[in-house]
Amino acid sequence: MDETNATRCQKYAADIESIKEAQVRIEPFIHRTPVLSSTTLDSLVGKQLFFKCECFQKGGAFKIRGASNAIFSLDDLEASKGVVTHSSGNHAAAVSLAAKLRGIPAYIVIPKNAPKCKVENVKRYGGQVIWSEVTIQSRETVARKVQEDTGAVLIHPFNDGRIISGQGTISLELLEQVPGIDTIIVPISGGGLISGITLAAKAINPSIHILAAEPKGADDAAQSKVAGRIVTLSEANTIADGLRAFLGDKTWPVVRDLVDDVITVSDEEIIKAMQMFYDILKVAVEPSGAIGLAAVLSDQFKQSEAWKDSNKV
Amino acid sequence: MDETNATRCQKYAADIESIKEAQVRIEPFIHRTPVLSSTTLDSLVGKQLFFKCECFQKGGAFKIRGASNAIFSLDDLEASKGVVTHSSGNHAAAVSLAAKLRGIPAYIVIPKNAPKCKVENVKRYGGQVIWSEVTIQSRETVARKVQEDTGAVLIHPFNDGRIISGQGTISLELLEQVPGIDTIIVPISGGGLISGITLAAKAINPSIHILAAEPKGADDAAQSKVAGRIVTLSEANTIADGLRAFLGDKTWPVVRDLVDDVITVSDEEIIKAMQMFYDILKVAVEPSGAIGLAAVLSDQFKQSEAWKDSNKV
Repeated sequence: MDETNATRCQKYAADIESIKEAQVRIEPFIHRTPVLSSTTLDSLVGKQLFFKCECFQKGGAFKIRGASNAIFSLDDLEASKGVVTHSSGNHAAAVSLAAKLRGIPAYIVIPKNAPKCKVENVKRYGGQVIWSEVTIQSRETVARKVQEDTGAVLIHPFNDGRIISGQGTISLELLEQVPGIDTIIVPISGGGLISGITLAAKAINPSIHILAAEPKGADDAAQSKVAGRIVTLSEANTIADGLRAFLGDKTWPVVRDLVDDVITVSDEEIIKAMQMFYDILKVAVEPSGAIGLAAVLSDQFKQSEAWKDSNKV
Repeated sequence: MDETNATRCQKYAADIESIKEAQVRIEPFIHRTPVLSSTTLDSLVGKQLFFKCECFQKGGAFKIRGASNAIFSLDDLEASKGVVTHSSGNHAAAVSLAAKLRGIPAYIVIPKNAPKCKVENVKRYGGQVIWSEVTIQSRETVARKVQEDTGAVLIHPFNDGRIISGQGTISLELLEQVPGIDTIIVPISGGGLISGITLAAKAINPSIHILAAEPKGADDAAQSKVAGRIVTLSEANTIADGLRAFLGDKTWPVVRDLVDDVITVSDEEIIKAMQMFYDILKVAVEPSGAIGLAAVLSDQFKQSEAWKDSNKV
């Protein structure tokens, strides 16, 4: 590793090299998802839009990229005891699926109030469901207990270099599929997705604008950018159930240094974007995935540097 | 043209050569649509399934393939007077869009009871709407009057070699995207889509099974295959509004000779397939597009030669 790389790796939890390694590692287990476009949507917005459809990814979300990179990075001894996580969402299903592909147990701590469909996804992919109370404290305590009892490795949903590297493979695909792209808009929650996408995209083309899209009811990233430090909220209140987490110490530095801006949108704007995806693009997108289009349609985007720098249709 | 080709062209309205020519002609105007797959659906059925998503095609359906091939096949003098059609569905929008791309007028005869969203699509793509009564006689009379008044060329929705050749380009893409495919299931209405797909696919690999999927309430193709001649029905009664047409003299020979079987399904089975597309594949598919999955799930498919010949998951 040369000095530049060493410096970069000290600064951030992943880099273009770890992301390229992830791409090779996870290639057998994931879909290369399609990029859709619509002249109708382009006309409405006045910009050429491309949608990287990770809703068609294995397990139904991008999460399998990070989960399979983390799980297939483990050596055989580590892996033999299995893995544990305490996400109730798409990450839980992805960890279950990746563990199944590796042939090791996955222990998934799920709060009692989790949506039934998410629990069914975990079970379908062979994850062992372990119930906890609703609080984050209870979830973490139960997960720790599982670790102690089984020796399983914790696979954090976002605050982990292997997860960030896995999610970053999206940029490698996207910039191959649409070479001239000038702006990437990414949903932000814990920041694993946007950190990986940003580190890969800016390494390939430093002039690409990266905008985060965040619900107004869970705008910790927007507040953190203003404050210059990680801000957490006493509660997150949004329809976008995948975007309620707060930034971690591995994702915050990337968001702080390399993400150009955070666009916040209301739940009403998210619902309108979901409707447009369904009516015009014919894709059923969950709220957390539809937020990017909501951001594109917002006034805040129209006032951004990215808007000025990008070509009209 | 050698003797074999001459014989083939006399027999059918299109062939692999006219389909390859169409592919080159329409390439600037269409999307290469993605093929989606789902291990969940594969497990449910016990076969590996691939979905060629023409719902993501320009104009929202495969119809732009045939329409753009027909319209860009016209010489400048023919084209200058514009084109006319009397479909109220996806073909009408496709003709409007293709005519707009060529810069010529499109006259679209639409029955008074057409769904508003279909009329809006036509208008959005610049088609000139001309109202007719609901009967097919009225539609044809009005279309003929437009032809006389304007000199516009009639672009039939399916009973036309240029249309069949355009739709056939789907097979060229699909067999590149999924080389080992052993069975193709295609919705059948007037037969333009399945004729093109069949002529291309069987020219490339004669052992591929081609099955038509047809609503029980509009099963003229199934009845035609049994009778050995074109059967038309006094009425078509199905939720699949794109599958209510009857075979024409240019499509029937292909269906008679080269389509292996017709699988008929109820509207309830179509609705169930739409739901599965939405829940599992995350795609909003109209009834006429969902019928292929309904056919795959049917007992009739499990009793077919195609089922026996295809590999299990």
